Amino acid sequence: MTSVSPTDPKYASRKRQQELLSKYLSVRSFTNRIVAPLEPEDCVIQSMLNVSPTRWHLAHTTWFFETFVLKSAPEFRAYNARFEYLFNSYYNSVGQQYPRAQRGMLSRPTVAEVLDYRRAIDEQMIARLESAKRLTDQELDVVELGMNHEQQHQELMLTDIKHVLSRNPLTPHYSSDELQVDSHRLTSSWLDFEEGVYEIGHCGDVFAFDNESPRHRVFLESFSLCSQTVTVGEYLEFINDGGYERSELWLSLGWHQVQTHGWQGPLYWQQKDGVWTEFTLSGQVDLQPSLPVCHVSYFEADAFARWAGARLATEAEWEVASEDTPEEGNFATSLMDSGAAIHPNDNASTTSDLRHLYGNVWEWTSSSYAPYPGYEAPAGALGEYNGKFMCNQYVLRGGSCATPVGHVRRTYRNFFPPESRWQFSGVRLAR
Amino acid sequence: MTSVSPTDPKYASRKRQQELLSKYLSVRSFTNRIVAPLEPEDCVIQSMLNVSPTRWHLAHTTWFFETFVLKSAPEFRAYNARFEYLFNSYYNSVGQQYPRAQRGMLSRPTVAEVLDYRRAIDEQMIARLESAKRLTDQELDVVELGMNHEQQHQELMLTDIKHVLSRNPLTPHYSSDELQVDSHRLTSSWLDFEEGVYEIGHCGDVFAFDNESPRHRVFLESFSLCSQTVTVGEYLEFINDGGYERSELWLSLGWHQVQTHGWQGPLYWQQKDGVWTEFTLSGQVDLQPSLPVCHVSYFEADAFARWAGARLATEAEWEVASEDTPEEGNFATSLMDSGAAIHPNDNASTTSDLRHLYGNVWEWTSSSYAPYPGYEAPAGALGEYNGKFMCNQYVLRGGSCATPVGHVRRTYRNFFPPESRWQFSGVRLAR
Amino acid sequence: MTSVSPTDPKYASRKRQQELLSKYLSVRSFTNRIVAPLEPEDCVIQSMLNVSPTRWHLAHTTWFFETFVLKSAPEFRAYNARFEYLFNSYYNSVGQQYPRAQRGMLSRPTVAEVLDYRRAIDEQMIARLESAKRLTDQELDVVELGMNHEQQHQELMLTDIKHVLSRNPLTPHYSSDELQVDSHRLTSSWLDFEEGVYEIGHCGDVFAFDNESPRHRVFLESFSLCSQTVTVGEYLEFINDGGYERSELWLSLGWHQVQTHGWQGPLYWQQKDGVWTEFTLSGQVDLQPSLPVCHVSYFEADAFARWAGARLATEAEWEVASEDTPEEGNFATSLMDSGAAIHPNDNASTTSDLRHLYGNVWEWTSSSYAPYPGYEAPAGALGEYNGKFMCNQYVLRGGSCATPVGHVRRTYRNFFPPESRWQFSGVRLAR
Amino acid sequence: MTSVSPTDPKYASRKRQQELLSKYLSVRSFTNRIVAPLEPEDCVIQSMLNVSPTRWHLAHTTWFFETFVLKSAPEFRAYNARFEYLFNSYYNSVGQQYPRAQRGMLSRPTVAEVLDYRRAIDEQMIARLESAKRLTDQELDVVELGMNHEQQHQELMLTDIKHVLSRNPLTPHYSSDELQVDSHRLTSSWLDFEEGVYEIGHCGDVFAFDNESPRHRVFLESFSLCSQTVTVGEYLEFINDGGYERSELWLSLGWHQVQTHGWQGPLYWQQKDGVWTEFTLSGQVDLQPSLPVCHVSYFEADAFARWAGARLATEAEWEVASEDTPEEGNFATSLMDSGAAIHPNDNASTTSDLRHLYGNVWEWTSSSYAPYPGYEAPAGALGEYNGKFMCNQYVLRGGSCATPVGHVRRTYRNFFPPESRWQFSGVRLAR
Repeated sequence: MTSVSPTDPKYASRKRQQELLSKYLSVRSFTNRIVAPLEPEDCVIQSMLNVSPTRWHLAHTTWFFETFVLKSAPEFRAYNARFEYLFNSYYNSVGQQYPRAQRGMLSRPTVAEVLDYRRAIDEQMIARLESAKRLTDQELDVVELGMNHEQQHQELMLTDIKHVLSRNPLTPHYSSDELQVDSHRLTSSWLDFEEGVYEIGHCGDVFAFDNESPRHRVFLESFSLCSQTVTVGEYLEFINDGGYERSELWLSLGWHQVQTHGWQGPLYWQQKDGVWTEFTLSGQVDLQPSLPVCHVSYFEADAFARWAGARLATEAEWEVASEDTPEEGNFATSLMDSGAAIHPNDNASTTSDLRHLYGNVWEWTSSSYAPYPGYEAPAGALGEYNGKFMCNQYVLRGGSCATPVGHVRRTYRNFFPPESRWQFSGVRLAR
Repeated sequence: MTSVSPTDPKYASRKRQQELLSKYLSVRSFTNRIVAPLEPEDCVIQSMLNVSPTRWHLAHTTWFFETFVLKSAPEFRAYNARFEYLFNSYYNSVGQQYPRAQRGMLSRPTVAEVLDYRRAIDEQMIARLESAKRLTDQELDVVELGMNHEQQHQELMLTDIKHVLSRNPLTPHYSSDELQVDSHRLTSSWLDFEEGVYEIGHCGDVFAFDNESPRHRVFLESFSLCSQTVTVGEYLEFINDGGYERSELWLSLGWHQVQTHGWQGPLYWQQKDGVWTEFTLSGQVDLQPSLPVCHVSYFEADAFARWAGARLATEAEWEVASEDTPEEGNFATSLMDSGAAIHPNDNASTTSDLRHLYGNVWEWTSSSYAPYPGYEAPAGALGEYNGKFMCNQYVLRGGSCATPVGHVRRTYRNFFPPESRWQFSGVRLAR
Repeated sequence: MTSVSPTDPKYASRKRQQELLSKYLSVRSFTNRIVAPLEPEDCVIQSMLNVSPTRWHLAHTTWFFETFVLKSAPEFRAYNARFEYLFNSYYNSVGQQYPRAQRGMLSRPTVAEVLDYRRAIDEQMIARLESAKRLTDQELDVVELGMNHEQQHQELMLTDIKHVLSRNPLTPHYSSDELQVDSHRLTSSWLDFEEGVYEIGHCGDVFAFDNESPRHRVFLESFSLCSQTVTVGEYLEFINDGGYERSELWLSLGWHQVQTHGWQGPLYWQQKDGVWTEFTLSGQVDLQPSLPVCHVSYFEADAFARWAGARLATEAEWEVASEDTPEEGNFATSLMDSGAAIHPNDNASTTSDLRHLYGNVWEWTSSSYAPYPGYEAPAGALGEYNGKFMCNQYVLRGGSCATPVGHVRRTYRNFFPPESRWQFSGVRLAR
Repeated sequence: MTSVSPTDPKYASRKRQQELLSKYLSVRSFTNRIVAPLEPEDCVIQSMLNVSPTRWHLAHTTWFFETFVLKSAPEFRAYNARFEYLFNSYYNSVGQQYPRAQRGMLSRPTVAEVLDYRRAIDEQMIARLESAKRLTDQELDVVELGMNHEQQHQELMLTDIKHVLSRNPLTPHYSSDELQVDSHRLTSSWLDFEEGVYEIGHCGDVFAFDNESPRHRVFLESFSLCSQTVTVGEYLEFINDGGYERSELWLSLGWHQVQTHGWQGPLYWQQKDGVWTEFTLSGQVDLQPSLPVCHVSYFEADAFARWAGARLATEAEWEVASEDTPEEGNFATSLMDSGAAIHPNDNASTTSDLRHLYGNVWEWTSSSYAPYPGYEAPAGALGEYNGKFMCNQYVLRGGSCATPVGHVRRTYRNFFPPESRWQFSGVRLAR
């Protein structure tokens, strides 16, 4: 056995390895915190194709570390040979995948068995990261990717379980934490930005996904961005003005959705005897006009903007405009810490001109999700992470109340098909 | 309050009431025995439209007593007002039903909560049956119907959980009890019956479902019935002779099923590298040629019979032929008691000429499920129990290894659509 | 070449051969009469899965003679090698079939080309039947089958084109012949029949399909049959009494149809501003209360009977009851001859006690279509004609206004799935 | 009646009105030329959702002039009141539309009746354009839009009828004109373009659709474009290198298409006994390696480019690169005039560096179809022409062999969903 030279440039500094260990423990522990309120029965339901059972998320995020970090070691032995198939999401390079549409057909492994699996992989990961045998920078990059990957699934666990619980006529709720509604609501205003050639995309040393690179130039005409996101009250005006009955406000595909699915408001909104309520992770509550509207599709965001005489921003505009705004806001971690419901709120703590740019709700942009000029997917299985999804999806920016703190950044590109509504997605107007 | 006169003819004898209480306790307790080996996660999965989650069966059978026995009492208070909707199967007269196709979308009430529900209703039922205030005969008839109803669901719990577990690549099994295979196999023979006008249908005092009445006359040509049901070995000959590739052996709808679903053998059979295995409630096992074939559809039973130069019996032939055969056989209760797998076996204990006529496998008849001449469905909601299903289904006779002991009888008519395979359904030839 | 001995018993008499030639010419010519009013565009549309384009019927009936009569001759040359595939309906023994669901995807061969095909095959058939070289009885049996087959398709051409035209918002009509409505309507009465063992099924020398044999005994309880079929006026009472909203009147599968397809009346009925009209082959007309109701499914027939406190007859009851009624009525041929619309009417010409037992509307029976005791399908491809469809269909008796004269008989068994409504199917009550 | 002042600025010049009349006659006449080879039966088939029957195209293009030009006149009387509903494609502002998916359910009006309709509207249009009473510029704009609209449908008539005929096992062909294959094939090369801020979008006086405006600036990195489109021979190399079996070459949605639909080559390609042939408007022919590949989806274009180590151009790159290339090429009009098949060819007549940039095949770009900065849809029904389709589609540039001459231009934006293959769509590589 050769001893590792601490000065070999391909090996990471001891410091980075220690920092990642610490962050690893923190990320994994937050996942446990998310699932703590759930019953085993909650964790196996797939309430629609896009939703995965909680148990699947718990296993898949663990599978990621086992497959992409631990598997390459010569002494590796699979925890359970069938898991490679069962918990592979979409990595064709790794092998066949258990069909996504059938994730709700599996009662085993039980939640308890999956938690055992998590603990076993954690032990191996910790041993690896604590080991005197240093990992290469490339290996640590994969560990870091795995942690960011798990954070993405933390958000999905919250949005997926919300969907699962919402389907139940008993309207069970995830937690009893209450929504926060602030009485001092600021009025919105328009912020102006000048035309010019700008640079967007990832730069610097912090972690970023491949789809944020390369940094490149774009030409922007002058534009304005609204100081805050659209509120529930404003959205109700749209509805009351016949928003869901006027085809001229909608993209053709959006109108088709409205007609086919009978949309009459955002997902989780319900009107009964003239009273609007909303299903939240803290149960069924009355609509709060001052809160940001969320759970709208791209189609609804676009139709609302057209109704309001405005439009959605492009992702380049959003990124250019965000330059001076600190990456702070209502994220899942702080909401949980403060005993507040996982839901957007309207606290006025932020002093930025662009209020709640981060956290609260993801903001739909008008940009189709596409590779940046010069983008190349990484080699191997991890090249399947982002690039192959660059078609028929739209970019969202800024993170939401279900995003763990520290996960998003200015250049972060989230993306969903235009009909998706089960994420905490909202609207910021541009013109 | 009037005291009940023990001699009022509309009130049941104290003895009947006591007997039903005793049977009630026994039936309810057997349900608990069936679910004992399951994990909570197992109990919420709906693996296909026809399958209900175990938790649903547990609640629905309880709902039946609550709705049809307890609800009529003046002091009745619903255990949970939403349960009437959630656990109503198909009784339009009672009210709207939670959609059958979405039974697997519910994580709550949890299994533990449903067991609480069961206990609460049991307490009320026991109090009612123990009460000095005697019940009318009609009320006790409904109690008895509820117990027979629960026994039907006991069989469905076993066949449904078998389907749920079979969909899992980890092939979990329900129990570790082993299949029983007897080495002394008897050869089959034909038993002959003469033409004539016969009577079939329910008569006498024992409980029977409405669909077994009225007793009536039929004319039968002379016929022969095989002394035993078709074996796995015989069925393999059919397969090896191209049974699943020869359209001329099949009904048109059956051939469509074969083509559409790629059937190559009974449900749960699997061929891999030339070796046939079968998924059972005790796990994946090698095929046992001497055991009765099961999990075949009406279409397969019919095609096999055509291949064998024979046919299926009509239900009238089956009932006439069964006259001298005692209602004994391999039922779920005795198999569990003796530590044997819930699976048909070939023990030679029976001395009847028509071996294993009861228990082991339900026997498809060629009779479309139809009302007997003069049949009338009972008034009210319980009239929906049987009559409205008399279309596009075929009658099966004799019970199976998943039927609780004491449930079936000579005149018992089970029925399923011709493509159904997830029951323990097999084949007895006639000609 | 051997000369045929006129006394060889396997050869048919010259007389039979001449009679069949004459009937062949007559049948083929009636087909041409049916299609005469149609445009080429009408003849290629498949308005639902069960409907075939007229052009397909024209070709398929010709294909039948080419395949089953002409092909066996040594000098045979296919008219077009691809036609064997294109115009084979469901004969697996003959070979692969062009998919039924795609019959409306074909613009070629054009109608004119198919009429050329018909003429070419007619020439060969005539030559064969006129030839001095006599055909065997078995060969003539196939010729006769082919003519009866074409008559079945004549009825389908009329019911299929009715469906095609009905889908068009321009409501084109097939002919301008008018409906006949008689003012002297007789009231209905019940005819009684005694219990006993009866014989049903084909006997004698006239042509019959294999499914009408063998003649056999059945036991019938005493029963009554209504003197006439249910009228439009009576059916409107059922509708006005909430017939389509009361689940307790329906079979479960029937209620599912009502809910899924929004049935509110028979096929082709339409209510607009409180006025009921009906699409007929002679255009959109007001409902005529005295005419027989038609285009109802088995489910509707069954629900109506339950509402009326009656039931449908079994096919055995129908056949036994029909013993003294002459096989006369409103058939397509005579309606066309007299310039009347192809639609049931209420002329009082018939003097039978069971009025309009033949012609006008097919009468749903409660009998599932099943083989008679001892039935065996013929060997070879023609064995696929009837037997393989004996599942999930219900028997109809008596012929309709779209049936060519001389086609049906007392023992004739028509059959359709219980949800079918596009045939001229009606209701006669029993009890 | 007031006489029109020739100098009123809102009225068009007499010259423009005369020119449009002349063009109107020419466009309408070319439509008749396209349908001349077809049988009536060909004209009513809808072979897939995206295909419209020829008869529908003939009527809809006429409906466009009737609705948007003639209807506003005070003396207007609808030709047939039902046509407004039947032949409205997607203009919600005009009213309800006959369902697109059912266009193949209509046999009437017949083709002859639709040709009558065309002649009647032509008469009115000619009278209007010949009238001394001059039209306003805005009215003439709509006339011009209607002619460009009809030209778009001329291309669709050719691609739709190709699809209809291709579904027929008899492989009927549209014409007997032969494919042109040139033996002197030029090799491809890369042309380089420099980075910078460019202007794209419509400018000048010629007709353009609203989606080509406004002209605006974009920043482009330096790029290269291939001198010619991908050939059949090159595409075969991709296939032979496992192009359709290697998931890593495909977008995720594209790979799903490959798997779901079993794609193994471009639409209309067929491999039988190792030999590749292709269905063309002139029948089934052997693949010609030197011809441009066509009938590929965006997914295939993208996968091919990835395999080739290149990419697709953005639409801005395409437009910038095309600056010096004349708008000439193989268009439908000239191919018909010269007796050549409607199919891309490889004639070397063009002397441009970017060969066959116009005509032959539409070139997929990597640009999602989106509004240009500052785009606004026109008011009223004609605002539904383009804008509402700007979602989940990709832009194609340059026109094809099925495009009528004079229809496309440098700034022309065609668009189709990424899975579409029935247009003459091909690939030009960029990097």
